[in-house]
Formats: sequence, C-alpha cells, structure tokens
Amino acid sequence: MGSFKGHALPGSFFLVAGLWWTGKHSLWHVTRRNKNLGSGRVASRASQRRLELIESSIVVFFSFVGILAEQFADGPRLQLYNAAEKHWEDVMNWQHSTMYLFFGLAGIVSLIVHTTDVAPLALDRLMLAVAFFNEGFLFLYHLHGRTMLDVHVHQLLLYAVFGSAAVAFLEVFHRGNILMEMLRCTLTMLQGSWFWQIGFVLYPPHGPEWDLKDHNNMMFITMCYSWHLAFALLAVSMVYCTVSCVVRSRLKRTPPMEMGLLKPREREPESEDEIL
Amino acid sequence: MGSFKGHALPGSFFLVAGLWWTGKHSLWHVTRRNKNLGSGRVASRASQRRLELIESSIVVFFSFVGILAEQFADGPRLQLYNAAEKHWEDVMNWQHSTMYLFFGLAGIVSLIVHTTDVAPLALDRLMLAVAFFNEGFLFLYHLHGRTMLDVHVHQLLLYAVFGSAAVAFLEVFHRGNILMEMLRCTLTMLQGSWFWQIGFVLYPPHGPEWDLKDHNNMMFITMCYSWHLAFALLAVSMVYCTVSCVVRSRLKRTPPMEMGLLKPREREPESEDEIL
Amino acid sequence: MGSFKGHALPGSFFLVAGLWWTGKHSLWHVTRRNKNLGSGRVASRASQRRLELIESSIVVFFSFVGILAEQFADGPRLQLYNAAEKHWEDVMNWQHSTMYLFFGLAGIVSLIVHTTDVAPLALDRLMLAVAFFNEGFLFLYHLHGRTMLDVHVHQLLLYAVFGSAAVAFLEVFHRGNILMEMLRCTLTMLQGSWFWQIGFVLYPPHGPEWDLKDHNNMMFITMCYSWHLAFALLAVSMVYCTVSCVVRSRLKRTPPMEMGLLKPREREPESEDEIL
Amino acid sequence: MGSFKGHALPGSFFLVAGLWWTGKHSLWHVTRRNKNLGSGRVASRASQRRLELIESSIVVFFSFVGILAEQFADGPRLQLYNAAEKHWEDVMNWQHSTMYLFFGLAGIVSLIVHTTDVAPLALDRLMLAVAFFNEGFLFLYHLHGRTMLDVHVHQLLLYAVFGSAAVAFLEVFHRGNILMEMLRCTLTMLQGSWFWQIGFVLYPPHGPEWDLKDHNNMMFITMCYSWHLAFALLAVSMVYCTVSCVVRSRLKRTPPMEMGLLKPREREPESEDEIL
Repeated sequence: MGSFKGHALPGSFFLVAGLWWTGKHSLWHVTRRNKNLGSGRVASRASQRRLELIESSIVVFFSFVGILAEQFADGPRLQLYNAAEKHWEDVMNWQHSTMYLFFGLAGIVSLIVHTTDVAPLALDRLMLAVAFFNEGFLFLYHLHGRTMLDVHVHQLLLYAVFGSAAVAFLEVFHRGNILMEMLRCTLTMLQGSWFWQIGFVLYPPHGPEWDLKDHNNMMFITMCYSWHLAFALLAVSMVYCTVSCVVRSRLKRTPPMEMGLLKPREREPESEDEIL
Repeated sequence: MGSFKGHALPGSFFLVAGLWWTGKHSLWHVTRRNKNLGSGRVASRASQRRLELIESSIVVFFSFVGILAEQFADGPRLQLYNAAEKHWEDVMNWQHSTMYLFFGLAGIVSLIVHTTDVAPLALDRLMLAVAFFNEGFLFLYHLHGRTMLDVHVHQLLLYAVFGSAAVAFLEVFHRGNILMEMLRCTLTMLQGSWFWQIGFVLYPPHGPEWDLKDHNNMMFITMCYSWHLAFALLAVSMVYCTVSCVVRSRLKRTPPMEMGLLKPREREPESEDEIL
Repeated sequence: MGSFKGHALPGSFFLVAGLWWTGKHSLWHVTRRNKNLGSGRVASRASQRRLELIESSIVVFFSFVGILAEQFADGPRLQLYNAAEKHWEDVMNWQHSTMYLFFGLAGIVSLIVHTTDVAPLALDRLMLAVAFFNEGFLFLYHLHGRTMLDVHVHQLLLYAVFGSAAVAFLEVFHRGNILMEMLRCTLTMLQGSWFWQIGFVLYPPHGPEWDLKDHNNMMFITMCYSWHLAFALLAVSMVYCTVSCVVRSRLKRTPPMEMGLLKPREREPESEDEIL
Repeated sequence: MGSFKGHALPGSFFLVAGLWWTGKHSLWHVTRRNKNLGSGRVASRASQRRLELIESSIVVFFSFVGILAEQFADGPRLQLYNAAEKHWEDVMNWQHSTMYLFFGLAGIVSLIVHTTDVAPLALDRLMLAVAFFNEGFLFLYHLHGRTMLDVHVHQLLLYAVFGSAAVAFLEVFHRGNILMEMLRCTLTMLQGSWFWQIGFVLYPPHGPEWDLKDHNNMMFITMCYSWHLAFALLAVSMVYCTVSCVVRSRLKRTPPMEMGLLKPREREPESEDEIL
C-alpha cells in the first residue's frame, strides 16, 4: 500500500487507539484514587471488564478486516508464491497482513484473559509487547534500498514502535502504573500521527514533492518528530485532566452512600491489578 | 556440519526442549494455583525434584553425545591445531562442541542445585542464560564472508537465542513468573523451528536451490520468521491449555481429602520458588 | 549558534543545574537520615515544596528566554520555511528551540505536580527523562557530514545526555534513591563542563585551532572526557559532604525539642517519596 | 605499554581480584546461611569490615603504583603536551593512568563508605561500575586503525569489562545477591585471563607470530574466549565449594555456644546488606 491512504489509515487507527487507551486508563486511575468518595459507582469492576471485552473485540474485528483488505483489495489474494514467474507475490501486503495478524492475536488473548481465568492478566500486555515488537521487526527489514529521507522517516517510526513494545513489556512487571500507561498511550499516538506525516512526506496529496535526498529536509523531519512527540504529550495530558475533572465534579455532586452500604463494595478487589 | 541434517538435529532438540518446558512449567503453575482443590497430589514437591533431575540428566547426556559426535563423526577427533599444514582443524566442529559444552555445564549445575543445597536455586537459570548467550555469541562471529541470505537467516536466529538468554536472566530475579517461563519456551521453540527453516533454505533436500542474493527472498524470510513466532506462540498456548484442562478435570473427579489430612501437606513449601 | 558562546551558555546552565540538584538532594537525604535529631526543622515538608516550585519556575523562565533568544537573536524569527528560496530557515536554531521547549515542558509539569495532586509525583522525573532523551535524539541527527573530531566530541556528549535520561527514567521506579540522584547530578555536570570543552575545541577563543582530523587529538579528547567525569564526581561528592557536615553541626548545636512537641511532626510524611 | 608484560600485569591483577572476591563473597554468603550453627564466630561483622578496609587500601595502593609506573617507567613523566613537536605525549600511558585513577577512586570511596556512615553502602558498587565502565569506554576508542585480529581480541575484552560494569550496577539495587556477586567475579577473572591471552596472541614471548589477518584465527580466538569463560566459571565454582565445605566442617567440629550466649549476637545486623 505505498500510497497516502496506506499510511493515513493505520495512522488513524493508532491515533484512535492512543486516545481511547488514555481515556480508559485515566478513568480507572482516577476512580481508584477517589475510592473513598464512592467512585466505585462510576467505574465498577464489572463495567471495567465489559469495556475490556468490547475493546478487544473491536481490535480483533479490525485486524481481521485489515488482513482481508490487504489480501483482496489489490493484493495477492492469499497466493504466496508465483511458481510461473518464480517470485513471491506482493510481499509487502503479506507483511502488512502479518502485522495485523499479531495485533489480532493480542486482541484474542485479551478476550480470553478477561473472560476466563486460565491465564494471568499480565498476558495481555505481554502479547501487546510482542505485537508491537513484531511490527517494528518487520519494518526494520522493510527499508532496504530506499532513498535517504524515506529510510529516515521510517527509522523514526521505529523509535515509537519499539518504545511502545518496551513500555508494554515493562507493564508486565509494573501493571497499573499510570505513568507507564500514559507513556504507552503517548508513544502510540506519536506512532499514529507520524504515519500521517510519512504519508504527507512521501506521497504529498497536493503541493510539490519533497526532495528525498536533501540533508536539510532530514534535519527538519527529525525536529518535526520532536514536535509530534510534544503534541502527543499535550493530547494525553489534556485527556487525562479532562477525565480527572469530570470524575471529580460528578463525585462531588452525588453524595456518597451510607457507610454501611459501602462496606461490601470495599471488599471487592480494588482493581484488576490486585488479582494478578 | 554445513548440511540439512546439521540444522535439523539441533532444531529438533530445541523443539522438544521447548515443548517439554512448556508442559513442565504449565503443570507446576496450574498445580500451584489449584492448591486448595488438593492438587498437591498431582505434582508434589518430591516429584517436581525428580522431574528436574531426569531432565538435567538427559541434557547432560545429549550434550556429551553431541560433543562426541562433533569430534569423531567426520570431525577433528580432538585434534585442535594441524602443525603440519599450519591451520586450525575444523574450527566449526570445535565451536559446536563448545556450544554443547555450555549446555552440558548448565545441566550439571542444574543437577547439583536440585540434589544438594550448596547453591541457590536460581543458579540453574543463570547458567541457562550463560549457555544461551554463549551460543548466540559464537554464532555472532560465525558469519563472516557468507552470502546475504545466509547471514540474514542466521541473524534472525540470534534474536531467538539472545531473547532466550535475556528472559532466562530475568528469571533469576523473577523466578516462577509463568509469563517469563512461557516466553522462554516460545523463544526456544522458535529457535528450534527456525533451525529447520535454515536447513530448508540453505540445503533444500529436494526441489530447487534458493537464490541467496535475491532481496525479495530476504523480505519473505523475515516475514516467515514472524510466522514461526506465531506458530510457537500457538503451540505453547495449546500445550498450556491442555495441561490446564487435564489437571482441573482430574481434580474435579477426585474429591479432596479430609481437611485434617491436608494440614501437614499445606505446611510444606508451596513450590521451589519460595525456598530461593 | 555555532560559536564559543553558543556552547558555553548551555554548558553553564547544566553546570549550575547539576550543582543545584546536588545541593538539594543532599540536603533532603541528610535531613531524612537525621530525623531523630530533629532535622525536620532544617528542611520541612513545606519548604521542600517551596524549593521545588522556585526551581521549576526558574527552569520554565529560562527555557522561554532561550527559545526567544534562539528565534530573535540572529535566528529565524518564527519563520519556518522560506518559500522564495525553497529551504528551511535556520534549522539549527529551530532545533535548539525545540530542546528548550521540552525542558520548559518538564518545568511546567513539575510545577503542576508539586502544586496540585492530579498527577503522581514521579511524573516530573519521567518528563525530565523525556526532555533529556529529546535533547540527545536531536543531537544524534545533528552531526551528518562534519569532520571526525567534531562528530566525536558531540558523540561523547551523547553519553552524558542519554545517561541522564536513563537515570531519570530509573528514578521513576526508584524515587528518592540518593545514589541515582547523585549519578544524575554527576552526568548533568559532566554534560555542562563538556559543553565548555566542545566550545574550546571547536571555537578556541584564543590560541591555535585544533586539527580536527588528527587521530591523536581524538585519543586525547576521549581521555579528557574521563577527566571531566572524574571532576564531576569530585564536585558532587564535595557538595554532598559539605551539606552533610553543615546540617549535622547545626543539628548538634541546637538541642532537640521536647519529645512531646516532636510527636505530631513525626506523623507528617517523611518525605515526598512516601506519598507517591 | 604495547608489550607482553603490559598485558600480563593487569591480567594478573584482575585474576587475583576475581579470586579474592570469590573467596570473600562465598565466605560471607555461607556464613549468613549457617547463622543458626553459630557461624557468627567465623566471620563476624567487625572482621568483615576490617577485610573490606584492607582490600580497599590494597586497591588504592596498587592504583597509585600503577599510575606512577605508567608515568615514570618509560612514560610521559607527567608531561601532557609537547609544545615543541606539537603532539600529545604518550597518550596511551595517560589513558592507562586514567583507568588506574578510576579504580583508585573506587578504592577510596570504598574506604570512606566502610569507615564512616556519611554515604550509603551501595556507593562502593556504583563506583566500581563507573570504574569498569570507564575502562571499557577508553578501550572502545583505543582501537582505531589496528589489524583485524588485534581489534577483535580487544573487542572480546570489552564484553567482560562492560559485563562487569553492568553486573556491578545491578548490585546497587540487588546488594548481597550471591549470584550477581559470583557473576561479577567470573567476568573479572575472564577479563584477567583474557589479558594474558591477548599478550600471548599479539606479543608471543616464544614461538611464531600469529597471522593477524587470517579469518580462521579470528574464529579460533572467539571460541577460545568461550573456553576462558568456562574456566572462569569452573574456578569460581571450585572456590565457592571449597569455602563452603571448609566453613561447614569447621562449624560441625566446634559445638555451638549456649543459646543464652548467642542471643545478643543474633541481635547485631545479619550482614552489611541490611544496613543499606
């Protein structure tokens, strides 16, 4: 999918995923911290689980759609080797399918982890780390023989991808650490917006082409990456603050229930982290 | 042993090791979690130790056989330097012997650790990490002056090898973490199946030779590695689920013993991890 | 700002920051350890918070000044792209502005973290790590096509920058570990003094030019870096010892208050670390 | 000191240091584990501290001697720049002096840490890590423009050096972990014996010269490094077992003191690790 759309599409997905995760983790973190104000009503354990299941289902669904789109929309149609012409059919599309496959696997694992109790909870983060790592790994060997700027913008992408993988792996050991969660959200949004940027640089929809061999362009693009990071940080912190304010104001308006009624609720595990 | 067999043999060993470890760690993890159902009977502390001893003995035995095979089956027959012709005798075979030697050492250490109490338990993982690292280290300097695809497939192997080493090292500090154990099993199986793949690519037993300089082949091989990883993940999760189901069904059928009888059993350390 | 001043200025800032941090962390560490001698009076919780706010404000102020100076003193005056001549305006100045921007963001985050309780305390270290990482990242792609020694001195700088980033990231998990704090101070001072050294090497204010292609010079510069590290270690340890001695002598002179009076003070959280 | 002696001398020092550390840490570990048998008499807290002071003093002494030897035995005699001929005087000797300097600093810090209580105990490991890192760092930029095998043997040395630095850094957080201590001892001994090997390869004292460009030699040397590692592992484990056996047999022969007499002894901190 060497086209503007081919970069804008995954970019949008990662942007949405980053925003969604930011909202989700912010909500749970704020809920946990304001327990004594009766915030259990805002986000109970059961609703948390339902949210996870919906999220995982959507991830699985879109991964499946992505694989089909790569294969049948202008792709190799499940044909791997062209024996007649002795070459591999559309290796690029197969690679993209493989990336989607791993995110799909991560979604399936997350579904299993949150519906049954066969596996430890942290498995969903481990699979997410594997999916991100696999994406970065395939991109790493994607770049042979391209022009300087093309290679450079994809290399910059790898920082965000491998960064997400590393943070998700750290979360296996430090689950529920809001800072690591926000960092992962930031890196995911950075990845998303950078996909858009790559699209604009390599396939400018209107306006002049970029000179892919100009060293000055490379210097600018590097700095541009820092700005994307700054915007991702800003977006994540704004979502966090909004969620935090909304939850607090709602809690203040509704008076807490009687202590006696709260007791049994306090007994249920504080958050998914403690069950681990 | 630059031949198909020379890659299929170690590949099979690592595949078997990966499967075996998956089964072992799954069994112990499920046993530990279902303690209250009386699962102590399924895998008691003594039987765990016996299993470890058998495993270690087999590792030591095959390492020894491997060293002998490398030396005497078409190898240097313990002769290191050919003074007449002024060159080293079969450096490759010596290198393979060295790799086996370290796995043998890891086996011996595991034997000592599980029979006596002179050394801390985690030493077996540390030696395993050293053995994997040593294997990767020797492969790293194995590749000078080969063709592009040959180098590439071996480099991909290194991901699995160094990954196993890193995870085993992490286990020194997080012993008994089922996720790390499963990750190590996955990487070991990936290594095993990739050895087979290398054999098929470099020494195709039937069918045409691969073009070792075609860039398209390299792209395909990279993706192929991801598929091996996906299959390894699938295999590990299937073994885990099977073990988990079997243990649970067995526990449900046999009613738990009287509480009074269980008491003393509960006193014995839950698993080897707590003794550390 | 390719000039002597352009390196001496940031160098001085990092030197001052390193010294200031050393003093601050030393004071708090010594105070915490000598609690029983009534050291709560020397550095109370409220004064700690006030100090943090002042520090953050200064960081924000100077970042803002730095951005303005880069833009308007001989810089691009907020103009990014020169459409007429089709090139980016003063990319270097824009890059420096970006670096300042991230340190400014870190300062703002620190202000928010220490005045409100919306975010966990460790966020200030995470943002500091991001700011240092961003600085190193931009320097990394700064160096294309320069002479050998020029590249080398900037590469050496990167050790200190990425080292600071790594230590600050570690502090997210090990907050209040005096050794990590001192290590970060050392690396920050090393960065500051090395900026001065770079100024002297690339733009010698008086005396002869350096031969930027002489391999012997490169060997000397590498060693010189070690000496800077040694001096930074020495400076940090001297500041620590001075603070330690002053606090102890002051505590000895003033007799501790009555036990009864101390009780409520002991109840307040020992340091910011415990609130995390 | 490009000579056989110049490599044999530091090699011997590291070998001795590795053996000494192995003995020391083994003794303390065994003592701690056999507390209930009255092993406090074998290695009391006070004798531990005395041992540390003696060790540190020796390190400081030999570092000082090393610096003097590098400067005055055939070296630059404290002259840094030859203004007449416009070149740096004996940069190599200055670099070696710098390495010794950092080990000397580590010794001094260890002295301070174990006599006073101004600094946390873990500081000695941090300084050791810095000293090892500095050694590796200087070697890293030592190798420009040498022949292939010369570069290769020094690169292999770096594995051991940076490995020691990393393990010492880990010990800052996991102090008293016998496995990390033994790993550091192993890597130090590996470094020592590899210095000897480098001496034999580059400056063979008798016998023929090595062909420094032969690829087969490089393959052999890599394997040889693995063997050195195996021997280091063997030596460390033998020392550990010997110490362990001797302490146990001594404890069995001398009957434990009366329980009443033991009580006060049990009160003193178990080992230096708990004071941290």
